Amino acid sequence: MSEADFIARLRAIATDPAARGLADDAAVWEGLVLTHDMIVEGVHFLPDDRPQDVAWKLVAVNLSDLAAKGAAPVGVLAGYSLGDAAWDAAFAEGLDVALRRFGIILLGGDTVRAPTGTPRSLGLTAIGRAPASGAPSRSGMRPGDRIWVTGTIGNAGLGLAMRLGQVDANETCLAAYCRPQPQIIFGQAVAPHVHAMMDVSDGLLIDAERMAAASGCQLGIMVEAIPLSAALLAVRPDVLDTRLAAATAGDDYQLLFAADPAAADAIREIAGALDLGVTAIGHAGVGEGIVLTHHAQRIAVPERTGFMH
Amino acid sequence: MSEADFIARLRAIATDPAARGLADDAAVWEGLVLTHDMIVEGVHFLPDDRPQDVAWKLVAVNLSDLAAKGAAPVGVLAGYSLGDAAWDAAFAEGLDVALRRFGIILLGGDTVRAPTGTPRSLGLTAIGRAPASGAPSRSGMRPGDRIWVTGTIGNAGLGLAMRLGQVDANETCLAAYCRPQPQIIFGQAVAPHVHAMMDVSDGLLIDAERMAAASGCQLGIMVEAIPLSAALLAVRPDVLDTRLAAATAGDDYQLLFAADPAAADAIREIAGALDLGVTAIGHAGVGEGIVLTHHAQRIAVPERTGFMH
Repeated sequence: MSEADFIARLRAIATDPAARGLADDAAVWEGLVLTHDMIVEGVHFLPDDRPQDVAWKLVAVNLSDLAAKGAAPVGVLAGYSLGDAAWDAAFAEGLDVALRRFGIILLGGDTVRAPTGTPRSLGLTAIGRAPASGAPSRSGMRPGDRIWVTGTIGNAGLGLAMRLGQVDANETCLAAYCRPQPQIIFGQAVAPHVHAMMDVSDGLLIDAERMAAASGCQLGIMVEAIPLSAALLAVRPDVLDTRLAAATAGDDYQLLFAADPAAADAIREIAGALDLGVTAIGHAGVGEGIVLTHHAQRIAVPERTGFMH
Repeated sequence: MSEADFIARLRAIATDPAARGLADDAAVWEGLVLTHDMIVEGVHFLPDDRPQDVAWKLVAVNLSDLAAKGAAPVGVLAGYSLGDAAWDAAFAEGLDVALRRFGIILLGGDTVRAPTGTPRSLGLTAIGRAPASGAPSRSGMRPGDRIWVTGTIGNAGLGLAMRLGQVDANETCLAAYCRPQPQIIFGQAVAPHVHAMMDVSDGLLIDAERMAAASGCQLGIMVEAIPLSAALLAVRPDVLDTRLAAATAGDDYQLLFAADPAAADAIREIAGALDLGVTAIGHAGVGEGIVLTHHAQRIAVPERTGFMH
């Protein structure tokens, strides 16, 4: 059974509106936003990634889901597989750092010892308070909306290639891979201004496809507008292939959102106050799926639009 | 690093009162009770256990933690490792059955595909509403309290031996192992009458030691009073060794609680209305640790008092 088939079975079970059909970043129940993400050694992180970075990533990827719902994070419950002592101690240290950095509490969790040689499988449940204006869904995008993304796209994917020794390393991209920064403050501030919002975790294009499907709209992306960092462009030429690679690499943990064009000034003001880049990359229309253009020329959607894991 | 050392590190992080020092069955935050338990193939369940039973157990062990805090369960988030299609489909079926049976909702979760050959590691976060009288802790036991346990002890441990072909099987003990029954209704009803409560997951004696340590009291157990089922006594003689084996086997998911002796009638009435057995097995005193007696003769505490996993 594919992951999609299994999730389809779970969707048939998750009929309560709080679950949002398992088609959103998080559940929204009685003013709380709840999410649970797992990361598995060899799938979501490398066996030789620093345990402090793995702990950071486990927290950050979950908080990114809360950010996408405009939630103020409160606390986490952690599910941890014990391994060797030094790794475990460094993980605990990293968890402490991440929780302090994000100002949230460790509420509880569970620790197990898996059979020796088992890749580590770590889970985290994060809880936050929904914004008073309501938690934006993925499904509220409307034809005519402008589509925005925070920060830059593709740094983490290139950072992974650097970690694997495939590309000369630079600090910015390595940091994007090792220490993703969930856009918590911006998410809370922008939530009242958006029609739909989600985080970019598996790749900009695949996540845009998901927002289009959830909203029943077509989402048009101007590939030349996708924001790339100077650090990425220092090692990659600014050509279409670079842009498509960045837009399908994943692990960005930026926010992708749709808003009325009239909200543009408010959005830019919020981002400016946080010294965060925010870029209009497209618009929503009638139809389905995503449509890509490059300097007004329509181009094919790549076969692989992101990670399915 | 041992599990105890790692948890000690986490305790230093989990300083918010909601975490209850990671020394309780669950966190209690703003009227909610939150718990996260994992089960790992080869550790907490057998590779050839029925996937429907594994799904039931994953839900039941978490709801047992909520029951121990007197909470009314609301919903769960599940972390799932995909494997072969038939197993996954049967697991989803079992999850549906368990959630319906307990009247709770699937809020969300995550699905990952671990490297082939990895033992399954499943996590669940359960959320419930704390009782209006407050969620009992493990630490409220007072000298002079009577100590009670629900149901019978040792069935699941014997059921595991039956699953392993070590003992002739009977339905009652197999069911206790495969389909533990969290005492949700009783937990909610008895919560206002108790000073301390926890569930028996790792063994009656080890869990009693934990309650004694959390409460700063001594806990005396009359081993002859530990309730054993007719199904267990059909295959085991009623001798001290049988009683100690039952009290250290674990997976019982009964409730262990301490209450003022004056609450005895109320406790028996609540249990009677639910057709649930409830047995006074000891008392709390000044001191520390557990003290065992057998027909008024003091006996040594076994070296192994339960499972540490």
